[in-house]
Amino acid sequence: MKVAAFGEVMLRLTPPEFLLLEQTRSLRMEYTGTGVNIMSNLAHFGIESYLVTTLPDNRIGGAARANLRQLGIQDTFIQQKHQHLGTYFAEMGYGVRPTQVTYQNRHSSSFGVSDETEYEFTKLLETVDLVHICGISLSLTDETRKAAQSLAKQASEMGKKVCFDFNFRPSLNTEENKVQLMKAQYEEILPFCDIVFGSKRDLTDLLKLSLNKELTEQEQERELIQRFINKYDIQWFAGTRRSQADSVKEIVGILHTKDQVVESQPRVISILDRIGTGDAYAAGLLLGYCEKWPLKDTVEFATVNAAVSHTIQGDVPLTTKDQIQQIMNDPSIDLIR
Amino acid sequence: MKVAAFGEVMLRLTPPEFLLLEQTRSLRMEYTGTGVNIMSNLAHFGIESYLVTTLPDNRIGGAARANLRQLGIQDTFIQQKHQHLGTYFAEMGYGVRPTQVTYQNRHSSSFGVSDETEYEFTKLLETVDLVHICGISLSLTDETRKAAQSLAKQASEMGKKVCFDFNFRPSLNTEENKVQLMKAQYEEILPFCDIVFGSKRDLTDLLKLSLNKELTEQEQERELIQRFINKYDIQWFAGTRRSQADSVKEIVGILHTKDQVVESQPRVISILDRIGTGDAYAAGLLLGYCEKWPLKDTVEFATVNAAVSHTIQGDVPLTTKDQIQQIMNDPSIDLIR
Amino acid sequence: MKVAAFGEVMLRLTPPEFLLLEQTRSLRMEYTGTGVNIMSNLAHFGIESYLVTTLPDNRIGGAARANLRQLGIQDTFIQQKHQHLGTYFAEMGYGVRPTQVTYQNRHSSSFGVSDETEYEFTKLLETVDLVHICGISLSLTDETRKAAQSLAKQASEMGKKVCFDFNFRPSLNTEENKVQLMKAQYEEILPFCDIVFGSKRDLTDLLKLSLNKELTEQEQERELIQRFINKYDIQWFAGTRRSQADSVKEIVGILHTKDQVVESQPRVISILDRIGTGDAYAAGLLLGYCEKWPLKDTVEFATVNAAVSHTIQGDVPLTTKDQIQQIMNDPSIDLIR
Amino acid sequence: MKVAAFGEVMLRLTPPEFLLLEQTRSLRMEYTGTGVNIMSNLAHFGIESYLVTTLPDNRIGGAARANLRQLGIQDTFIQQKHQHLGTYFAEMGYGVRPTQVTYQNRHSSSFGVSDETEYEFTKLLETVDLVHICGISLSLTDETRKAAQSLAKQASEMGKKVCFDFNFRPSLNTEENKVQLMKAQYEEILPFCDIVFGSKRDLTDLLKLSLNKELTEQEQERELIQRFINKYDIQWFAGTRRSQADSVKEIVGILHTKDQVVESQPRVISILDRIGTGDAYAAGLLLGYCEKWPLKDTVEFATVNAAVSHTIQGDVPLTTKDQIQQIMNDPSIDLIR
Amino acid sequence: MKVAAFGEVMLRLTPPEFLLLEQTRSLRMEYTGTGVNIMSNLAHFGIESYLVTTLPDNRIGGAARANLRQLGIQDTFIQQKHQHLGTYFAEMGYGVRPTQVTYQNRHSSSFGVSDETEYEFTKLLETVDLVHICGISLSLTDETRKAAQSLAKQASEMGKKVCFDFNFRPSLNTEENKVQLMKAQYEEILPFCDIVFGSKRDLTDLLKLSLNKELTEQEQERELIQRFINKYDIQWFAGTRRSQADSVKEIVGILHTKDQVVESQPRVISILDRIGTGDAYAAGLLLGYCEKWPLKDTVEFATVNAAVSHTIQGDVPLTTKDQIQQIMNDPSIDLIR
Amino acid sequence: MKVAAFGEVMLRLTPPEFLLLEQTRSLRMEYTGTGVNIMSNLAHFGIESYLVTTLPDNRIGGAARANLRQLGIQDTFIQQKHQHLGTYFAEMGYGVRPTQVTYQNRHSSSFGVSDETEYEFTKLLETVDLVHICGISLSLTDETRKAAQSLAKQASEMGKKVCFDFNFRPSLNTEENKVQLMKAQYEEILPFCDIVFGSKRDLTDLLKLSLNKELTEQEQERELIQRFINKYDIQWFAGTRRSQADSVKEIVGILHTKDQVVESQPRVISILDRIGTGDAYAAGLLLGYCEKWPLKDTVEFATVNAAVSHTIQGDVPLTTKDQIQQIMNDPSIDLIR
Repeated sequence: MKVAAFGEVMLRLTPPEFLLLEQTRSLRMEYTGTGVNIMSNLAHFGIESYLVTTLPDNRIGGAARANLRQLGIQDTFIQQKHQHLGTYFAEMGYGVRPTQVTYQNRHSSSFGVSDETEYEFTKLLETVDLVHICGISLSLTDETRKAAQSLAKQASEMGKKVCFDFNFRPSLNTEENKVQLMKAQYEEILPFCDIVFGSKRDLTDLLKLSLNKELTEQEQERELIQRFINKYDIQWFAGTRRSQADSVKEIVGILHTKDQVVESQPRVISILDRIGTGDAYAAGLLLGYCEKWPLKDTVEFATVNAAVSHTIQGDVPLTTKDQIQQIMNDPSIDLIR
Repeated sequence: MKVAAFGEVMLRLTPPEFLLLEQTRSLRMEYTGTGVNIMSNLAHFGIESYLVTTLPDNRIGGAARANLRQLGIQDTFIQQKHQHLGTYFAEMGYGVRPTQVTYQNRHSSSFGVSDETEYEFTKLLETVDLVHICGISLSLTDETRKAAQSLAKQASEMGKKVCFDFNFRPSLNTEENKVQLMKAQYEEILPFCDIVFGSKRDLTDLLKLSLNKELTEQEQERELIQRFINKYDIQWFAGTRRSQADSVKEIVGILHTKDQVVESQPRVISILDRIGTGDAYAAGLLLGYCEKWPLKDTVEFATVNAAVSHTIQGDVPLTTKDQIQQIMNDPSIDLIR
Repeated sequence: MKVAAFGEVMLRLTPPEFLLLEQTRSLRMEYTGTGVNIMSNLAHFGIESYLVTTLPDNRIGGAARANLRQLGIQDTFIQQKHQHLGTYFAEMGYGVRPTQVTYQNRHSSSFGVSDETEYEFTKLLETVDLVHICGISLSLTDETRKAAQSLAKQASEMGKKVCFDFNFRPSLNTEENKVQLMKAQYEEILPFCDIVFGSKRDLTDLLKLSLNKELTEQEQERELIQRFINKYDIQWFAGTRRSQADSVKEIVGILHTKDQVVESQPRVISILDRIGTGDAYAAGLLLGYCEKWPLKDTVEFATVNAAVSHTIQGDVPLTTKDQIQQIMNDPSIDLIR
Repeated sequence: MKVAAFGEVMLRLTPPEFLLLEQTRSLRMEYTGTGVNIMSNLAHFGIESYLVTTLPDNRIGGAARANLRQLGIQDTFIQQKHQHLGTYFAEMGYGVRPTQVTYQNRHSSSFGVSDETEYEFTKLLETVDLVHICGISLSLTDETRKAAQSLAKQASEMGKKVCFDFNFRPSLNTEENKVQLMKAQYEEILPFCDIVFGSKRDLTDLLKLSLNKELTEQEQERELIQRFINKYDIQWFAGTRRSQADSVKEIVGILHTKDQVVESQPRVISILDRIGTGDAYAAGLLLGYCEKWPLKDTVEFATVNAAVSHTIQGDVPLTTKDQIQQIMNDPSIDLIR
Repeated sequence: MKVAAFGEVMLRLTPPEFLLLEQTRSLRMEYTGTGVNIMSNLAHFGIESYLVTTLPDNRIGGAARANLRQLGIQDTFIQQKHQHLGTYFAEMGYGVRPTQVTYQNRHSSSFGVSDETEYEFTKLLETVDLVHICGISLSLTDETRKAAQSLAKQASEMGKKVCFDFNFRPSLNTEENKVQLMKAQYEEILPFCDIVFGSKRDLTDLLKLSLNKELTEQEQERELIQRFINKYDIQWFAGTRRSQADSVKEIVGILHTKDQVVESQPRVISILDRIGTGDAYAAGLLLGYCEKWPLKDTVEFATVNAAVSHTIQGDVPLTTKDQIQQIMNDPSIDLIR
Repeated sequence: MKVAAFGEVMLRLTPPEFLLLEQTRSLRMEYTGTGVNIMSNLAHFGIESYLVTTLPDNRIGGAARANLRQLGIQDTFIQQKHQHLGTYFAEMGYGVRPTQVTYQNRHSSSFGVSDETEYEFTKLLETVDLVHICGISLSLTDETRKAAQSLAKQASEMGKKVCFDFNFRPSLNTEENKVQLMKAQYEEILPFCDIVFGSKRDLTDLLKLSLNKELTEQEQERELIQRFINKYDIQWFAGTRRSQADSVKEIVGILHTKDQVVESQPRVISILDRIGTGDAYAAGLLLGYCEKWPLKDTVEFATVNAAVSHTIQGDVPLTTKDQIQQIMNDPSIDLIR
């Protein structure tokens, strides 16, 4: 199976050694984005992976593209047009101090101003079997909204699998009419989707689906998701749950299908870099999907992959299949030679 | 309210990535000191803050002064004279390995050799409402001793608030006559003070106040501090208490007034940089003092500020009011975007 | 004399050690801009200097502002609004390989979207004696155009000196209607100006002033500039001329007044960082202007200042008066201790 | 007592800040090896320490040798011949992600191709009282095998103490005939040895000693080791045991003599750098041996030394006697000034 | 036209800022080799470029491969086998101090131990139109010798162009029988070659061709090369000549065909990094060859490309067509924005 | 011949990449001093070399000592006492911008406060054949003055060679009584000296020797030096002369004996790091002295050594005999592999 992601590439700028922006004159640079993260991880897992995006037609665009190739991503469907690259600063958190992200220049980025007429979606869909679309495209600009909807529709028509990630941030969408717009956008794309990453809150807060208050909390969530799955004829609906007891943090992976709910063991997490975990979970699940693993194996693998991604600097999970399987087999080993 | 601190500026040199001095050819540079730390933090909280000090009249003095401005400190009352800057190396600890500080050149520093006749204290006290004095000035040199006493006395006479920090290190004052000298110095300055940072040990070991052994340990401490407060007519006496159970470390903030004792919730701490926590606690308390917050709110805020300062590289707490309040409101959030 | 500059602050990101963007994972960060460069240099010369600009109301804006204070600039008239900071990458050239600048995000920057109603120009002009305006504001956005014109006009009305820098880049203004717009903008602002930095080419290519072809080339230039000075009642018109023979590069500073033309000695230049030289020349001239130095001294100082700025990393000339005078007095000294 | 170690020097190359090889363009360099680690630590403890090895006769060999002197090791018996230095990359682990070591170029290294005829063992043994030999020499090449055996035999004949470290890695010796070869080599060297570092598994898996299954597990181990000690007339047999409960990891040091078994308190460990702990334990024990400390004190010291070595970057434990004793006395102190 | 190179990939480790190995704890890493350099440069020029090589089947091999993709090289014909990567340290020279290279581990590298049976040459030659072979393969190991000869022969038989680079280092081949072996190897491969990079000295010292001493020195060289070209039916024979007058260094490019000799203008060079210039010249010539440019244009372009490559850190010339043409058009421009 | 130097060790802190102190948060650290520089260079030349000095008895002293061993210096006669290390910041110059040195903490350094009673000079002089003393010891403190005089006298009495370096800085000795003190000190030590490094200016300005104005300028200098040599019975008097024409700088080495004056060829210099050149010249001369080379060879070698030292970062010349001889033989080679 060959896969592609449609999405934004961002330049991430990180002060070294947990320093704040005020404290440093030096930044580590990296190219990220949901599509970048998932495609790179799948490429590291041995899956042929493409990114469909627009990078600036200048030296930073060229540097970004070179870096995507280094990450293992095929650059065949990357175009270079316009002048700007979305950027964010990540001041790395430590202990009680949260990681702080400051975005720059996303709406006027080359990706943000490119619409569906600028991409070769047909040629892309003739090449790959599955396409991943991130919900961020629905909230970014009119151009990216149209491009995402168009790609999902066309993929569906051509019999390709569509994987969609809610990635909805209520805090960024507080105005009522913006929420309405978003709801409509999500409702428009969901009928084309086969695999969806999201949470209970996405269904209630964004899609305004109701909860059956007569059930237990856990039953409420399952019934809600079952209703959602049936409504949009979704094959897989997946997400993670985090918990914290004392100073120990844990993550659990969950996968809902029409027939069953599969949960992973809880996995203890130690956090070096907080960003990109959700994408690591998605990449793990997609690997199982592409290679038709049993559901239980898939969820366990994806959850460990998410846990390990916390221990890797940067957004991009650079894990390999062997590495994850070895950690699953013997988590106490802390030195390999 | 406008505030000022009188104190030493030091150059801190830190090997990167927890390396030892033997292991590195590179040092991170930073300008610190109790006054620097507290004034910079208050400036980040929105309080107009001044430092009164002497920096060398050369390029390193100029670089230090530029850095203090960057930290938000007003440099109006900073003079540049003489040639030396006190310096310390901080080899950062990890786990059981303690952070190791090695001092250089403090007695002959520009600050160390400048006496009260070289400063414009009157002009300063016409500008600010509160002045912070660190006990280190009392133990450094004759010049700094005289300057600190003179400033405290004059501030008191002009009706300004005086905040004093014991900062007494028994290990640095082991000779008997040195201890006698220190005791006399502290007894001389305390009558001018309104807010005092210190601990039970400062009162017993340095000031030789006795404990009432018939009380419980906790009662002993409270009675002792009450006696001290009354003796010197102190408005606030404040400090912190640390505890460790298993591998979890906690900090509690405490504030004594003539009427009551206020304690914060215990706060779990994770340590990235051990130095400067006391100053962060002091800055938090002074913010509440300046803005006349309720005592309980003040102590809770100051304690969280101290906890967060452990997670920031360097001595200088660069926290903001919003940041601390957000961590108080929802300590489980580890990523803000 | 107190001075202010109105202009953009940019984040400059530079790969270390002459590396290309493709070759590095690390960038050096710095805050620059014509106004930043000139005000910082004047502050290092001992002149009280302000910047009037808009920085983002987020952490990168805060870090930029802190850095401007470090550079010696007063931040009283800096506001923090909107979300973006203009940015550029500078891939440092070496030998025949030119330095390559790639701009990002200038039009939608906080400065670019702020118009004259958002600034407190009156309060500013009550504080300072001279205001510097960069031609870039005229070509950036409608908002910056209006703000610049408004400030020049108001300054002139309040009897303050206006210093203006053409800074016109034909390569960025190739469309005919854009050139017409620019010409009109420049013609609108020039009547308010006292000191102008520019070149013969600015007068011919942008303002469309004609050359008297019957004169020698040098006479043509002088007559042209004289005509320009008289037309707009300019006090000083200044610029530099570069030449290269074999591998030796030289710079000459020139200053035209209504009465005379003053030229500096030619100064050999060695280039470490190519950017910011023009601003160093401007800062040197403005120092002489503020302190009423003889014209010849002023031009010599400014030219050496420009030459030295080539040897300092980054755009911002951090030279001091003593340093430049010492190099003028004994240029063979290569070690000071 | 003067000591020497015979062994390989390796160049360790470590990406900074827990980055992976794919993520960095920069490596930290360090010179390590079992002999380097133990001799350097003993030198830091005040023992005169020599390394006997072969470094390349080129610039990297010279740089390595200079570094060994910096570590406190006498370079009198280091020769420079041939051209290659064994190298390894260490991608530092974090949390569940193990540290990953990738070796390069060990068999053809200058050490690997040098045999016993190239060393001045007699002169060495006239200088020192104890010589440490690492089991790695037995598995590396024919040349190192012969050299190690020859040195052990000659030391024994000259009445010098021989300390031997099993350092056997089953994963590197999976072929049957390789295991047979190894068994024979170990059996050949053991009769010359006085102090041996190893584990139960070395005795069962490599030497094929049987367990008395009728005993409890703990008794089995003790009986096995006693049998081994008696068979080869070993003075000390020592090792460590690790355990993990929840997220707390502990280490215990153990020392078997003919008369008794001494165990240390368990010590909590926090891991910054996983490599070199065994060597720190060995160095601690050898210090006690050289200075004839009581066994209990020796084992406690060595175990804390091992725990502290986890908190120091790199393989080489740079601890001092004072530092370890202070941590033993007051492990709660996290800041020394 | 599509091209490929057969050759070694090396890890280059460079101390920063012109430091010596003794002076640094940090190294910059880069992947290089004649094939890497030329293919990467051609890819930057827009030519589809492949490398045929063997990288280690471990993490450093994976990191190297990722980096080659970043450089624009197709990794389709790269295999990962065995365990070692050839490495070299480059201590960067400055002024009179030459750059010093120290090689490590070339003979036992994955490339060095792989022979022709391990590569898919037929599949490769069905894909590309021209293959570049470096003379280093002829001197490295028996395996690389056989592989290079086999590839050249097969390419010739399949009607593909063969480009060969002498790259003969007399200093590495001082033994008589080694020189004989080399001569035979070069004589064996030359009949298959169309484009050859070399110098007069290669023809006289290695191939033992005689000079006609009756001619002028320049005529001698031309007659010699003409004889060589005719003997082996070479299409292009090319090289560069360096000269130094005072402190100005120049480079001239030369191309001999059966009909004519084309020389470029001399180009002044400033050296940042001395290594890789020859490969930049070769890449420039091959671009002209692939795109059938006039010979004069080709040689001028290649020579400027070589001059610019001196100003780029590392071996790999990362120049683009536009960049070189712009420097040819206006070499005085030192800042592009 | 074995040699020793008596002198100060300083910590040199250098901003990277020619940055100013204001522009950096990172410093490169290095340990230097005239004695360090010369002894390290001689050790690199193969001479057994000792330093006699006092380092602080703390962690920075330990790190300094480790570094001296790395440089090849024997640490047998280094003591660790007191608490401070002299320090200087070196802001590296470029082109017309001079390198700027800012000293810190020299008078109160461990070296500065240690007098002759604290050193084991007799034991030292029983070990070595020549001792180098730097004039800086005469101007630093009373303690260092006495120690230097005592060492020179005792060496002379024990028949050891004394090498003395004027190193007199008029700018640091502007007060009349200080100049008188210095003159007396120099006159006291010179009778014990065999080899002296200095210049004409040292003899006229410090020692107040007169010039014979009837001679040509060159003759004046020679006659003056001859008179000086005879007066104090000096064996060698040596120094360098620098010249600059256009942008080319040159250095010439000169050696005066009782019989002759030897001058080297002029050598072009390119400057990477300006500091330590004089020490490199001294080390080169001392090598010839120790190994009894012909005078002409000695002066040529020393001059090239000085020229090369300009191209090495830091004060310490790390050149080797082979390296200098190769540059003398073929200065056009810019790449060695």
